Amino acid sequence: MLIEPIPNGNVTTPQGFRAGAVCAGMYAGGLKAGALDLALLVSDRECSAGGVFTRNLVKGAPVVVCRERLAQGRLRAVVANSGNSNSLNGPGGYRDATEMTELAASHLGLAPEEVAVSSTGVTGVAMPMEKVRAGLPRIGVDRDGGSAFAHAIMTTDTYGKECAFAVRDEAGVYYVGGCAKGSGMIHPDMATMLAYVTTDAAVERGLLQRLTAEVADETLNMLSVDGDTSCSDTLLVFANGAAGGPRVEAGSARAEAFRDALRAVCLQLTRLLARDGEGAGRMIEVEVHGAVSLADARRVARTITTSPLVKTAVAGADPNWGRILVAAGRAGAALEEAKTSMRLQGELLLDRGTAQPFDEETLHQKLAADEVRIELDLGLGDAVARAWGCDLTTEYVHINADYRT
Amino acid sequence: MLIEPIPNGNVTTPQGFRAGAVCAGMYAGGLKAGALDLALLVSDRECSAGGVFTRNLVKGAPVVVCRERLAQGRLRAVVANSGNSNSLNGPGGYRDATEMTELAASHLGLAPEEVAVSSTGVTGVAMPMEKVRAGLPRIGVDRDGGSAFAHAIMTTDTYGKECAFAVRDEAGVYYVGGCAKGSGMIHPDMATMLAYVTTDAAVERGLLQRLTAEVADETLNMLSVDGDTSCSDTLLVFANGAAGGPRVEAGSARAEAFRDALRAVCLQLTRLLARDGEGAGRMIEVEVHGAVSLADARRVARTITTSPLVKTAVAGADPNWGRILVAAGRAGAALEEAKTSMRLQGELLLDRGTAQPFDEETLHQKLAADEVRIELDLGLGDAVARAWGCDLTTEYVHINADYRT
Repeated sequence: MLIEPIPNGNVTTPQGFRAGAVCAGMYAGGLKAGALDLALLVSDRECSAGGVFTRNLVKGAPVVVCRERLAQGRLRAVVANSGNSNSLNGPGGYRDATEMTELAASHLGLAPEEVAVSSTGVTGVAMPMEKVRAGLPRIGVDRDGGSAFAHAIMTTDTYGKECAFAVRDEAGVYYVGGCAKGSGMIHPDMATMLAYVTTDAAVERGLLQRLTAEVADETLNMLSVDGDTSCSDTLLVFANGAAGGPRVEAGSARAEAFRDALRAVCLQLTRLLARDGEGAGRMIEVEVHGAVSLADARRVARTITTSPLVKTAVAGADPNWGRILVAAGRAGAALEEAKTSMRLQGELLLDRGTAQPFDEETLHQKLAADEVRIELDLGLGDAVARAWGCDLTTEYVHINADYRT
Repeated sequence: MLIEPIPNGNVTTPQGFRAGAVCAGMYAGGLKAGALDLALLVSDRECSAGGVFTRNLVKGAPVVVCRERLAQGRLRAVVANSGNSNSLNGPGGYRDATEMTELAASHLGLAPEEVAVSSTGVTGVAMPMEKVRAGLPRIGVDRDGGSAFAHAIMTTDTYGKECAFAVRDEAGVYYVGGCAKGSGMIHPDMATMLAYVTTDAAVERGLLQRLTAEVADETLNMLSVDGDTSCSDTLLVFANGAAGGPRVEAGSARAEAFRDALRAVCLQLTRLLARDGEGAGRMIEVEVHGAVSLADARRVARTITTSPLVKTAVAGADPNWGRILVAAGRAGAALEEAKTSMRLQGELLLDRGTAQPFDEETLHQKLAADEVRIELDLGLGDAVARAWGCDLTTEYVHINADYRT
């Protein structure tokens, strides 16, 4: 069994998926005026689908509609827009989100129950439905449209996030492709992060939902740009079986291979999202070993990636390991200073509680890289977790202090 | 019964307390070179004392020593320094913290068990004990030294935080005075925040400890600058009875008055700390009503004050109320969008889930104030809580990205 990355792969790399996008004028001006902002992704044939959504108690109307549709079991397409999140809009928001699925269904020759909807952008402003009604019928979907889809859902993202992997075994080959958007308001529990994964493998629906949730907890839910969760976060996975080959069923070697490929896609999207965090200069990857439990390992890893003091130290390429240890100490996980070891960019700074000498200037230069790696060994147990984030720069503040006004 | 503020009051306003400070050269250069950095506060007579400390599992050596001394029940003085936090220094740090109390005791003619110690500044660097040994004997303590003490413990603070109140009743008058330092790494659970409160009332020791913990939970523990808790946080309260008058005992009207005065001091210190958060342009006060429980009310209030997106919106004077509601939605407290109301600077923006029209420019101008007030009514119960924080500015990033390097 082989899992190989496909250069320039995306959500239309798997067979039987088409996508496309237009500029519907969702941005009156500013940020993305004139760029793609309304998009469709559709499977040519029936699908199984899995999804996970924001756990914020305040949910955008599109998330409410998506969850209903996913439960109906017939999803095979999604309409998505940027520029307006259609959240905090009361009952009118729900009507608009529903109408978007109806418009998309009518355009694609599907039933509304087959269409999911996602929106990202400003909150508390009614969707400009006249623009959606005018723009949506203009969207042509084709086999090359994956990248246009990925770009249409961008907001403050500085690049599209896309990837695909091929999975080869004795039964043949299938593909898993994905795209995501998200730059600020990103945190576990699916912050304003939209992600879509497609595969032409045939995957049993219950298994697909379970793997979607499991893989999200290891990858996208371990990502944090700013600790703020959005009310719109969505990960949808579509499996249409167009590649042929045996169905992927629970407990089989094929299920494990599919899980690995799904994780590879979600991990790559997670890293692409972390690297493009609002104002980010560098990505942070934290790996925690030796925790008493998986929950503890995740708590420590996430607390470090969300600490403003750690994030600003990384922005300054400052080997201020004390901030990392102190963040770990408030994570709510079991920790003993005298048993804790730490490496920064591979350099051992703390060996079971004892600070190690290091050359500050050398480490400062090592930290001035695109990726900063923090390894913590709690020395208490066997649990391991990884988390991803980015540094906190003055640019983050500019982006978010000036977003609306 | 009357509780009145004392202009320019501080920790030596209550009778029988003396303080003083010197420049011991704890800062080799930079930030505070040449300024006061080593200080003493002492009661002329025996005291009862109460204290609360960081809940971070990584604790600075001074906190470890302080807790031991508090348990011994004889505390009446504190030696404190800025420039070095004496934390993450292993067993050597504990020895140095102990020696500081011994040096102070010897200088003041006390037993080491009567002296607490606090240190704030860089972590993971051994205390320059030769400077402490040379500087400490030079400290003269007197009745006017409260302000020097408050200034010596400052790090990135831009002003000293001090206040005092007089409590008058039929038995006479007594005073409660306080000072605090803290600007970054400030968050509930006592982040690098040092605070000292003195009173010349006589307060029964058990009552004093209980009131200290209760009042801290309502005031200093509801403060957050950046969500990062320090390993050095300390609040110590000394009551020496020098004012005469009956002892303050549990269940009495005098106990309630003392509690009100202690709260007034801690609340004032909390507001002074919030206003001086690292890089802060404005203070944020959040008041949550209608929560199902006190824990829920506190969770929502604190989540709002720690949200980077809320904090950057306040920095931009942006009436982006959606960010506030969405932060509340991820607080882990019961919340129903359709029952939630919100006021920003007194203006009703959300009435039981329905957005209210408002003039964006007018509200933008109202938000460009020194204090921003957010009121949220969850409409679910009777619990109320307040929390304090500050906006997140580019200056915060500058301060913390450049702190050591």
